[in-house]
Amino acid sequence: MEEKLKIYNTLGQKKTIFEPFNPPFVGMYVCGPTVYGDAHLGHARPAICFDLIFRYLQHLGYKVRYVRNITDVGHLESDADEGEDKIAKKARLEKLEPMEVAQHYTDSYHFNMDSLNVKRPSIEPRASGHIIEQITMIEEILKNGLAYESDGSVYFDIEKYQRTDHYGKLSGRVLDDLQSQTRTLDGQNEKRNTYDFALWKKAHQEHIMKWPSPWGLGFPGWHLECSAMSTKYLGEVFDIHGGGMDLLFPHHECEIAQSKAANGKEPVKYWLHNNMITINGQKMGKSLGNFITLNEVFTGKHELLEQAYSPMTIRFFILQAHYRSTLDFSNQALQAAEKGLKRILEAFAKIENIITSEKSTIDINDLRKKCYEAMNDDFNSPVVIAHLFQGVKIINNCLEGREKISHDDKEILKSIFNVFLFEILGLKKEKNEQEAAHSTNSSQLIDLLIALRQEAKKKKDYEAADMIRNKLSSLGITIKDTKEGVEWHIN
Amino acid sequence: MEEKLKIYNTLGQKKTIFEPFNPPFVGMYVCGPTVYGDAHLGHARPAICFDLIFRYLQHLGYKVRYVRNITDVGHLESDADEGEDKIAKKARLEKLEPMEVAQHYTDSYHFNMDSLNVKRPSIEPRASGHIIEQITMIEEILKNGLAYESDGSVYFDIEKYQRTDHYGKLSGRVLDDLQSQTRTLDGQNEKRNTYDFALWKKAHQEHIMKWPSPWGLGFPGWHLECSAMSTKYLGEVFDIHGGGMDLLFPHHECEIAQSKAANGKEPVKYWLHNNMITINGQKMGKSLGNFITLNEVFTGKHELLEQAYSPMTIRFFILQAHYRSTLDFSNQALQAAEKGLKRILEAFAKIENIITSEKSTIDINDLRKKCYEAMNDDFNSPVVIAHLFQGVKIINNCLEGREKISHDDKEILKSIFNVFLFEILGLKKEKNEQEAAHSTNSSQLIDLLIALRQEAKKKKDYEAADMIRNKLSSLGITIKDTKEGVEWHIN
Repeated sequence: MEEKLKIYNTLGQKKTIFEPFNPPFVGMYVCGPTVYGDAHLGHARPAICFDLIFRYLQHLGYKVRYVRNITDVGHLESDADEGEDKIAKKARLEKLEPMEVAQHYTDSYHFNMDSLNVKRPSIEPRASGHIIEQITMIEEILKNGLAYESDGSVYFDIEKYQRTDHYGKLSGRVLDDLQSQTRTLDGQNEKRNTYDFALWKKAHQEHIMKWPSPWGLGFPGWHLECSAMSTKYLGEVFDIHGGGMDLLFPHHECEIAQSKAANGKEPVKYWLHNNMITINGQKMGKSLGNFITLNEVFTGKHELLEQAYSPMTIRFFILQAHYRSTLDFSNQALQAAEKGLKRILEAFAKIENIITSEKSTIDINDLRKKCYEAMNDDFNSPVVIAHLFQGVKIINNCLEGREKISHDDKEILKSIFNVFLFEILGLKKEKNEQEAAHSTNSSQLIDLLIALRQEAKKKKDYEAADMIRNKLSSLGITIKDTKEGVEWHIN
Repeated sequence: MEEKLKIYNTLGQKKTIFEPFNPPFVGMYVCGPTVYGDAHLGHARPAICFDLIFRYLQHLGYKVRYVRNITDVGHLESDADEGEDKIAKKARLEKLEPMEVAQHYTDSYHFNMDSLNVKRPSIEPRASGHIIEQITMIEEILKNGLAYESDGSVYFDIEKYQRTDHYGKLSGRVLDDLQSQTRTLDGQNEKRNTYDFALWKKAHQEHIMKWPSPWGLGFPGWHLECSAMSTKYLGEVFDIHGGGMDLLFPHHECEIAQSKAANGKEPVKYWLHNNMITINGQKMGKSLGNFITLNEVFTGKHELLEQAYSPMTIRFFILQAHYRSTLDFSNQALQAAEKGLKRILEAFAKIENIITSEKSTIDINDLRKKCYEAMNDDFNSPVVIAHLFQGVKIINNCLEGREKISHDDKEILKSIFNVFLFEILGLKKEKNEQEAAHSTNSSQLIDLLIALRQEAKKKKDYEAADMIRNKLSSLGITIKDTKEGVEWHIN
């Protein structure tokens, strides 16, 4: 490819050519789920968008180490530093050990992501499994004078950091505004400034998830895990950091500050943010209570759903929007996605039936080029999909004799679908219930075809009889005439 | 059930009635895999045996917290305290971050276990995620005078432990024998006695996986993780500890010593050990190089395999032996298992066809009672399977009129299969490849039939055309003639 991959960097807010630090290696960190509830549509989007990016980088030949964390401790109910730990709260309500809750929802997240054909990341570290790394990082920040201890907790000193650096460089937030916006919360009096955030929180007696530290029993602040784990597995400086736009502030802003304060280096070259799934214009989220879980989507069991939608319908629906655009949930849009994907898959299944000509009347290389151009333009999957629909049109035109295609071009056409539809967009043919019904029927269908062949033979229509035998044979079904009648088997 | 569950306890070597500390709660810890290679048949056995036990305890109404660990650090090449870390070695050979290796094989272990229908444990902690807990435990043991530091490493002082306790109580090993048997290894001069084992090992400079500790940079000894994680998630004293017989010594013996030394309590009430899978009488194991991976088994790609064996065939094969008996691998035995399971499933599928009578000529309650008796006798799955074959005989006799069964008894017969075959033994019907092949072909078969119908119409053979339409319709496939051609759908 001559064309170079361009990526929109939230840091600096512009598209630039992608140049990793140490090609062909690429380090990519993406914020994973807080495992205290079933995954919902809002979780599917970042997983699928960054899966697209992971797949495309791999397709381009990069060796990607993709780290996506599991937050199993430290994420408090409010995004500020107060409230109960989300997982511990769930555990208390369900009378379980917090790790039982985390394990249950980690497993169910994996099952859901597998069905969405989201590739597993290279490393999936758990926050609770990296307490030492987080404590070590806090010690560095303290040593560099950018944090302070206060009654068993440690806070990041934003004002001091601000003297030499810029807190707000990613999100564009201005410190003075933050000051006035911050609500007065319990425990705020420990902080020098209300906008300071916790690196370590002292655990109250009743707190279940806590570890020993130089500052007493406690637990890490939520933002810290990502800085500590990305440093551990990708280094102090790495290529790509991704996550949902809702994490831009404060989470990612804090990550930059923490890493810079600890390691003295700007940690991430490219910051990528996917936009939200909305319902009636509002972000879908667990904390907002307006979410539809993926299990509900797959089974159709939710009052907002008119029907069940398969995992590939959801994947297609999400990829039909560019990752930085909002995507509004509606049954109409999902049904359109279902239909669109079906159309593409059906057309692809018919490519083999195209009879090739000496010369093509279509420019298939142009179509391939356009697909790459779209992907190189900040992973523009909706444009790729539009080009695939163009491919569908070409297939149908060729089948119906309105266009001609050469043997070589037909192979290219096939490879466009194989590369873009299956490998990069990660879509696949699903066994739906319809097909499950098929499989019960197929032996009866074969019996019917054999009966028709016998009928043709009786009428001495050997052409038809042979045609049936040959077609069946091309489907891998062998017919054998025996004394007891016709036998068949699948090769 | 009047009958009570009896369990063979390796500690004390006898069968006793199962009485958990705090019913209905049961805490169970089972040693999981060291994730540095694909899971093989030898991994399937403990996973399936303890899955059987987990399922049966749940069936009896116990609320089981089942903890199975992932060893991702600290397991050295030799079971002694020397050699390279197994995962770090693999990472070095494959030029990967050790956690990438651990993640890859953790994921593949999960995929394999899912296909074997092994339920996920309640908590699956990783050794590398519990370094603090391990350090804390070492500090306790040091405080209690039962360990000593030596050049940045910490060793367990067996001789001192022996003064008040009994190292060897589980395995029956005698200390004097150990002394003479222990090989002279590098670093042994740090130890007071050659049989002392490492709680913490100093990391050499080139070591990748290491953490700060009060004794400098290092990593935990392999035995320690299980003591630390079982204590954390199940308490200082819990009901069941399981694992393979090969772990009895030194691993489990060391666990008892560590926990006792740290907490002052005998940690485990019931020690359960599954026996090995052997090939030609030798234990199958990665370190022995004579293993067959599960992926090889499922695809048939291994020189020792005459064919592929499905996950359920493997599960049935394993459950056909009592968990404490050895089980020798052979194609013959696997083929017999495949056939046996097929016979049971086919019989079960025919229960609905049995025409019931006023009175039964068979004692179905006795069969159910015998199944429970077998499970209550130390989870005797082969005897349960023998009883299920008795059930198969009953089904066939009823179908062929040799025996009679009442409506109520038929329901009990059905429930015996549902409870024992599916719920407790965890077997299930599999889609075989033939069926999978069918489903790929069926839409093409329908297309072919429609083409034949179009052909018939062209020839004005409306009888044939209608016959095809009607036959398809009777299979639930509706044909619709539209302007764009023929459409079909399955009702």
